[in-house]
Amino acid sequence: MSKNKRTAIEPTRMENYAEWYQQVIKAADLAETSEVRGCMVIKPWGYAIWENIQRVLDGMFRETGHRNAYFPVFIPKSYFEKEAEHVEGFAKECAVVTHSKLEDDGKGGLKAAGELTEPYIIRPTSETIIGASFARWVNSYRDLPLLINQWANIVRWEMRTRLFLRTTEFLWQEGHTVHESYEEAMEETQRMLTVYARFAEDYLAIPVIKGEKTEGEKFPGAVNTYCIEAMMQDKKALQSGTSHFLGQNFAKASNIRFQNRNGEVEYAWTTSWGVSTRLIGALIMAHSDDNGLVLPPRIAPAHVALIPIYKNEEERDQILAFTHRIQDLLKNTMFDDIKVYCELDDRDLTSSERNWYWIKKGIPLRVEIGPRDVEQNSVMIARRDLEPRDKQSVQFDALPGYVLKALADLQSNIYTKALEFRNGNMIKIDDQSEFYRYFTPQNKNQPEIHGGFARSHWCGDVSCEERIKDDLKVTVRCIPFDAVEEKGSCICCGKTSVRRVIFAKSY
Amino acid sequence: MSKNKRTAIEPTRMENYAEWYQQVIKAADLAETSEVRGCMVIKPWGYAIWENIQRVLDGMFRETGHRNAYFPVFIPKSYFEKEAEHVEGFAKECAVVTHSKLEDDGKGGLKAAGELTEPYIIRPTSETIIGASFARWVNSYRDLPLLINQWANIVRWEMRTRLFLRTTEFLWQEGHTVHESYEEAMEETQRMLTVYARFAEDYLAIPVIKGEKTEGEKFPGAVNTYCIEAMMQDKKALQSGTSHFLGQNFAKASNIRFQNRNGEVEYAWTTSWGVSTRLIGALIMAHSDDNGLVLPPRIAPAHVALIPIYKNEEERDQILAFTHRIQDLLKNTMFDDIKVYCELDDRDLTSSERNWYWIKKGIPLRVEIGPRDVEQNSVMIARRDLEPRDKQSVQFDALPGYVLKALADLQSNIYTKALEFRNGNMIKIDDQSEFYRYFTPQNKNQPEIHGGFARSHWCGDVSCEERIKDDLKVTVRCIPFDAVEEKGSCICCGKTSVRRVIFAKSY
Repeated sequence: MSKNKRTAIEPTRMENYAEWYQQVIKAADLAETSEVRGCMVIKPWGYAIWENIQRVLDGMFRETGHRNAYFPVFIPKSYFEKEAEHVEGFAKECAVVTHSKLEDDGKGGLKAAGELTEPYIIRPTSETIIGASFARWVNSYRDLPLLINQWANIVRWEMRTRLFLRTTEFLWQEGHTVHESYEEAMEETQRMLTVYARFAEDYLAIPVIKGEKTEGEKFPGAVNTYCIEAMMQDKKALQSGTSHFLGQNFAKASNIRFQNRNGEVEYAWTTSWGVSTRLIGALIMAHSDDNGLVLPPRIAPAHVALIPIYKNEEERDQILAFTHRIQDLLKNTMFDDIKVYCELDDRDLTSSERNWYWIKKGIPLRVEIGPRDVEQNSVMIARRDLEPRDKQSVQFDALPGYVLKALADLQSNIYTKALEFRNGNMIKIDDQSEFYRYFTPQNKNQPEIHGGFARSHWCGDVSCEERIKDDLKVTVRCIPFDAVEEKGSCICCGKTSVRRVIFAKSY
Repeated sequence: MSKNKRTAIEPTRMENYAEWYQQVIKAADLAETSEVRGCMVIKPWGYAIWENIQRVLDGMFRETGHRNAYFPVFIPKSYFEKEAEHVEGFAKECAVVTHSKLEDDGKGGLKAAGELTEPYIIRPTSETIIGASFARWVNSYRDLPLLINQWANIVRWEMRTRLFLRTTEFLWQEGHTVHESYEEAMEETQRMLTVYARFAEDYLAIPVIKGEKTEGEKFPGAVNTYCIEAMMQDKKALQSGTSHFLGQNFAKASNIRFQNRNGEVEYAWTTSWGVSTRLIGALIMAHSDDNGLVLPPRIAPAHVALIPIYKNEEERDQILAFTHRIQDLLKNTMFDDIKVYCELDDRDLTSSERNWYWIKKGIPLRVEIGPRDVEQNSVMIARRDLEPRDKQSVQFDALPGYVLKALADLQSNIYTKALEFRNGNMIKIDDQSEFYRYFTPQNKNQPEIHGGFARSHWCGDVSCEERIKDDLKVTVRCIPFDAVEEKGSCICCGKTSVRRVIFAKSY
């Protein structure tokens, strides 16, 4: 941090939240925009976070009986047209492949040639192309349940893009399953939502609200869409994962039929569910501060930055030797099922520069090793979620235990902080004018700052939902699972309502 | 295997090699063709092999200092045009995105709309799009070497496709590195070829020949292309991995410049290298037999099939209990750094059906557990590379040791077999008519069957290379690194040559 700056990231969250977000990504070197419209480049530190997300989720999918496979990136236009709501939902934002080569345009350049008889869409989601395989794979109830997951790149031609949160191309996983009954498919849909919630809370340290999407917000072609919603530090909601009960809609579109236990042929019941690199956006916005990224240790690419500090060659040898001993000591330390990973930063920079480098990157712990530390057989440790200058002296032998406890404390501390922030910014509102005030920014310079989440009654009518959206850019984020039945009046039209829903502005 | 069949796979390798290959894939349930032109669906058993390939290679790339990142799937046409040889090499077979949405065609269907101002190519390789990022990332020699790898899907519009070997879409990894000097870039190019060779031999159990491609066979835009070449069971060569020294060609095209140690700005030196899902094709064709897939244990998705055999409920309980004890016993057994993975097959099928199911899938070991085995506290074990009926009785306590030795023996046995096959089908030929006879099929019904690899002299002239290709469909696979300098006459024109090269038919 240069001396004339108050914080490592400028502007701060309060000054300009959207710009702060971009600057955190830049300072932590997570990603950059590319010259390709709306597509991002995920840089090594950002991609390592994605790999950790993949590793943990993949294990959870395996435990719940799913297996990975890979399906074509191209979806023939005719497949896409099979499910009416589905195509309606994605047709306006898809990349269309129309040609199979480039040839001389006669002006020294190249032009598209070899026109295809049928255009292909780059997958915006794979229900229809995977459905074509499933129709071949499923014949009898004995083939069910069929539990498949795919890790893949996805393209949706977004107009307004933002790194990680909304990009034309993004990475995700999409689960696709086939079942013999309504009940089993519904159970799977719920199970996977629970997996996502557990992952968000236990690994990303982000508290989430589980619930169901309204008719207007559900996945195109789904019967029901369930979601986990998280609150970001600007009090907006971020949909962090969805699980869809597809009923027999896609089975009918793709002709997935099977002989049931009574010997009759019927359409199967399917589900799909996914999370994406958007989770990295959630991670950044849930925990980071005005000094940069804050990473939950259970998903961080590295846990400890080792920063040796010396003034001359003699000190150098001694201190590096001690630093290597620390590296060896921590090498076999396990934080839950994760190996503690150290980054040794011996670059020719001041200790302050190196400290700030790692603060901005969100490494959980920083360990400084100076001449006095070697003498005392100790080190100075700083934790990313505490003040940058707050350091503890720790004896060499106590290091592994201290590191494990510090990582666990950091993990639970940022979860608690996020939970308290969300709960402190979520209130029940029953009065319409209070509702409008709650969502109206008080400061014209900060048009994004508003109350938070409102738990209010809604009659279930799409016209009320749309009116509130038009007036306030606020939508029903979900009908939460934990909503109790209670009588009330719709916050918009005053008609009877039986439960509260979550209203919020969202990404 | 049904009783009237001689082998589980029909036709056999000798009867129709190409069809045998397809049938092995089908019998092992590795992949299937999709309705999308030339694109395959990689099914769970096939994808699990790919995941193992990824895991091992990824570890090797990390050990050699590389980090993963992700770059856009789209390449703007203008990027593609920057390197003349490069675009020449890929323009004839690329998917071109020209539109960004679908809209009503007025006939009840949809048509491409929202034409792009500049078409995008789906990456057939990523030198140019990654180069654009590298140009931003590299400023000084301090930023070098820059060692990046990407795991991604690739599209090349192939005319004749074949599962795994040549598909329109395939999965691969592509390493891209930037260096400050010719020497360092060349060293990197060679280092990664060595990594590939080590992986092919130590994990896939496929012996390879390391060498350099001729001018006509090198990567479009490269200065030198190095490769590993393997012999399949039809004696054709399969290029199994390539490493390219790109000189300053792509640095100039993408403007990757840096300030060197003398303060001068110069173009950097780059490399790229890749292997793909083609390796699964190599694996199948190198080891499989007329009963199906044979998998090297170090890359197999599972190692042991447990096949309990019982006639009634009472036997069932006893035998399943014993089977679970075996599962527990083997659970913590490590084969090198790989956990031994068991598949318990308790399906309602005969033991013969289950045995043949796993034989066709290539599982290394099959363990049968019957009533007599439980009595004797032992099991019957069969190894995939031996005769299907060749079984050994092994005592319960001796199981872990036996399994480890059997896996190691299988791994080395199939490597030795492949090595002996290749060496037995590779000869020095100095006489032109012998050369032509060697590559001419003796049996018209088996047009693919021929001699194998020929180590012959070649003058280095592209016209000789082309003549042999036209006459025999034989090409120079590589100029092997281990070729000794010796005087000879070109097998085609008789002019002076200084070393032998490898001639072969190839995939």
